[in-house]
Amino acid sequence: MYLSKLFIPITKDLPSEAKIKSHQLMLRAGMIKQSSTGIYSWLPLGFKIMKKVEQIVRQEQNLIGAQELLMPTIQSAEIWKESGRYQDYGEEMLRIKDRQGREMLYGPTNEELITDIFRSSIKSYKSLPQLLYHIQWKFRDEVRPRFGIMRCREFYMKDAYSFDLSDEEAKLSYNKMFYSYIKTFNRLGLKAIPMAADTGPIGGDLSHEFIILAETGESQIYADKRIFDIDLDKYDFSKRSLEKMREDFSSIYAVTDEKFDEKKFDKLVKKENQIKTKGIEVGHIFYFGDKYSKPLNCMIDAQDGKKIALKMGSYGIGVSRIVGAAIEANYKDNVMKWPKAIAPFDVVIIPSISKNNKENLQKAIKVYNELKEQNIDVLLDDVDENMSNKFKKHDLIGVPYQIIMGSKSSSNNLEFKELNSEIEMMSMEKIKSKLKKK
Amino acid sequence: MYLSKLFIPITKDLPSEAKIKSHQLMLRAGMIKQSSTGIYSWLPLGFKIMKKVEQIVRQEQNLIGAQELLMPTIQSAEIWKESGRYQDYGEEMLRIKDRQGREMLYGPTNEELITDIFRSSIKSYKSLPQLLYHIQWKFRDEVRPRFGIMRCREFYMKDAYSFDLSDEEAKLSYNKMFYSYIKTFNRLGLKAIPMAADTGPIGGDLSHEFIILAETGESQIYADKRIFDIDLDKYDFSKRSLEKMREDFSSIYAVTDEKFDEKKFDKLVKKENQIKTKGIEVGHIFYFGDKYSKPLNCMIDAQDGKKIALKMGSYGIGVSRIVGAAIEANYKDNVMKWPKAIAPFDVVIIPSISKNNKENLQKAIKVYNELKEQNIDVLLDDVDENMSNKFKKHDLIGVPYQIIMGSKSSSNNLEFKELNSEIEMMSMEKIKSKLKKK
Repeated sequence: MYLSKLFIPITKDLPSEAKIKSHQLMLRAGMIKQSSTGIYSWLPLGFKIMKKVEQIVRQEQNLIGAQELLMPTIQSAEIWKESGRYQDYGEEMLRIKDRQGREMLYGPTNEELITDIFRSSIKSYKSLPQLLYHIQWKFRDEVRPRFGIMRCREFYMKDAYSFDLSDEEAKLSYNKMFYSYIKTFNRLGLKAIPMAADTGPIGGDLSHEFIILAETGESQIYADKRIFDIDLDKYDFSKRSLEKMREDFSSIYAVTDEKFDEKKFDKLVKKENQIKTKGIEVGHIFYFGDKYSKPLNCMIDAQDGKKIALKMGSYGIGVSRIVGAAIEANYKDNVMKWPKAIAPFDVVIIPSISKNNKENLQKAIKVYNELKEQNIDVLLDDVDENMSNKFKKHDLIGVPYQIIMGSKSSSNNLEFKELNSEIEMMSMEKIKSKLKKK
Repeated sequence: MYLSKLFIPITKDLPSEAKIKSHQLMLRAGMIKQSSTGIYSWLPLGFKIMKKVEQIVRQEQNLIGAQELLMPTIQSAEIWKESGRYQDYGEEMLRIKDRQGREMLYGPTNEELITDIFRSSIKSYKSLPQLLYHIQWKFRDEVRPRFGIMRCREFYMKDAYSFDLSDEEAKLSYNKMFYSYIKTFNRLGLKAIPMAADTGPIGGDLSHEFIILAETGESQIYADKRIFDIDLDKYDFSKRSLEKMREDFSSIYAVTDEKFDEKKFDKLVKKENQIKTKGIEVGHIFYFGDKYSKPLNCMIDAQDGKKIALKMGSYGIGVSRIVGAAIEANYKDNVMKWPKAIAPFDVVIIPSISKNNKENLQKAIKVYNELKEQNIDVLLDDVDENMSNKFKKHDLIGVPYQIIMGSKSSSNNLEFKELNSEIEMMSMEKIKSKLKKK
């Protein structure tokens, strides 16, 4: 992609309400545009990054055997009355009347609807277990939307639901999802810590939050950094191995503010392993048994002929939120560097161009075409602008690697720079192999 | 995928309102489930097909240089008041009040919102032309939703918008999109005819509908079948060549009911080339100049320093609707055969299994694994059911190729069947190369 063609309205003007780093950067780099309070359009740069996040989340859900479907955004109030949540949910639920006066709502979550689908589809224990998920826009009518897409009203979320015959089997589904979440965040290039959580309004008795470390996060985190050393590859998908995995994570100290006890922290965690920072919640998993299957009468014929209410769990990842969280975790000293897996481009070529000298641009186009042939996703900054402005701009866009084409670069010795590192002189062959290795 | 694991609630019970083929098939094959009037969940089989359609539409949009972004589903009423359509749109628009009493709506289309994005982002003629698109859920509160996902309320649509400095340049954008649409429908394996259309409520002076031929379509079609012989490859992307392409399409007879003139038809079209059938609209493109840019004050600095209202067009494809249209066009004599490009699987293996004899299933698993290794997307029917029921089921699911593992098949001579054709005995090598060639 040539930068001059990219629809990327970079701006210096920030509204006063853009208080946190991710909100500021996303507006400045033309990733999003607010369309109304707490509602955003995702412009091409932001959209591309969000799609990469979505695709990794999807692949990891598929790998544990979860099946993707898609529920609509608008739901009937009826099923929410069956579960009893229509009243409970309060004003955060966007309630709608259609032209016939029917009570509808914009789904803030999907426990009711997936249970309704399940109860009319699956009748026998033979079809269990099942893991179903969708990635869909949700709406929560926040009383005070703020922090850009971090606390907005319309947001993009992956929510999965598990269906099992017994508590024990349901726990296996829960642990698979736990495993998948750790793997997902690893692949996204984000440091996420699972933390035992209160089950809150969804209810139930087993729940974990997944929290990304970022100094600007919303909650205070105290943890033992050895939690990042746990190697997922040593577990298999047997019941016992996954149970062991969850125990291993749980055995390492990691709490939020509310549960923090300084004496315990100092006693259990060596000084050099102590992490005291902040965090952003990007995932939440719950096990809630028959909380929805019972009132919605989602029953299954068990092996002994009895009818049993299904045991269910739900598993959310904030896909749009992760984009903001990745910025909070990686935007430092006015330089954004995207994790490679979700970077908008693999590399950007920045030629020094002046009105009278397009030689560098010609050289850059040659390099661009050569990289394209290797299926490397390249951005070419073909804009006629001074280099200092260009570098500032690319500190916002955050492509992790740069090829700088100035006076120093010859046709086979190029200035190559990883953001936040020094420039290295590098041959084209070495650059190609470096970019392809990722 | 093993069929026993697939979440595919096949059903024989059809509601009385399922009157057309696509609605019936989608319910019977467990592709969709109605959640409330005119609103559907897409179950895994239907979802997978819709995603394939979406991906082809996306790739072809990208190939003509259109950039993808994503606008939200919920819009503020303000911009619709600016354009004057807030009142005009009538009851089909789902109007919403949020908790603060603000007037919102669920977007039925996006001319206003994209114009709002553009006017605050692009100021100079140097950034033109631009083609922007998104693929997003829309809502139209139909007074009488029917025909399943063909006339539903929440639907999935690709809508693109072009921005140009002059009518002439805008026509080039229009013709590029015209080209892209023909190519898209070709790739989808659907026969689509472009027809000059009235511009209707969106207004403007240039408009085409793209209509897929299907005997059960909503409008009567009269056309010269030579329109399918036009070879897109002979045009390039120059202004002149694309203009020629549109002329070539326009010169061949193709009209709907309203414009039909039997004498003219018989005079212009040879008997053996006459098509008299029905059709389903799946795409619509409009050029409407400054109809929105003027009231919304979306101006650009032209080369001579003057402010000019941008010339815009809009270009829709009904992504979810295409799934239904593909069924209407291809579901015949109780057999559905998906076009290869959007088939849910490349091939299905159907072993004859009985309680006492799992030998065929073992052989089938071996074939399954061998095909998987070639990146062929295989469905294995591992369900213990008689063959006659299995065949009926696969006539619904519509995977275009079958490998039947019964008494006749040896380890290297398999019964291979293309739907609607005879069984052939075929070696594994030949099957592999046949499936990979597609």
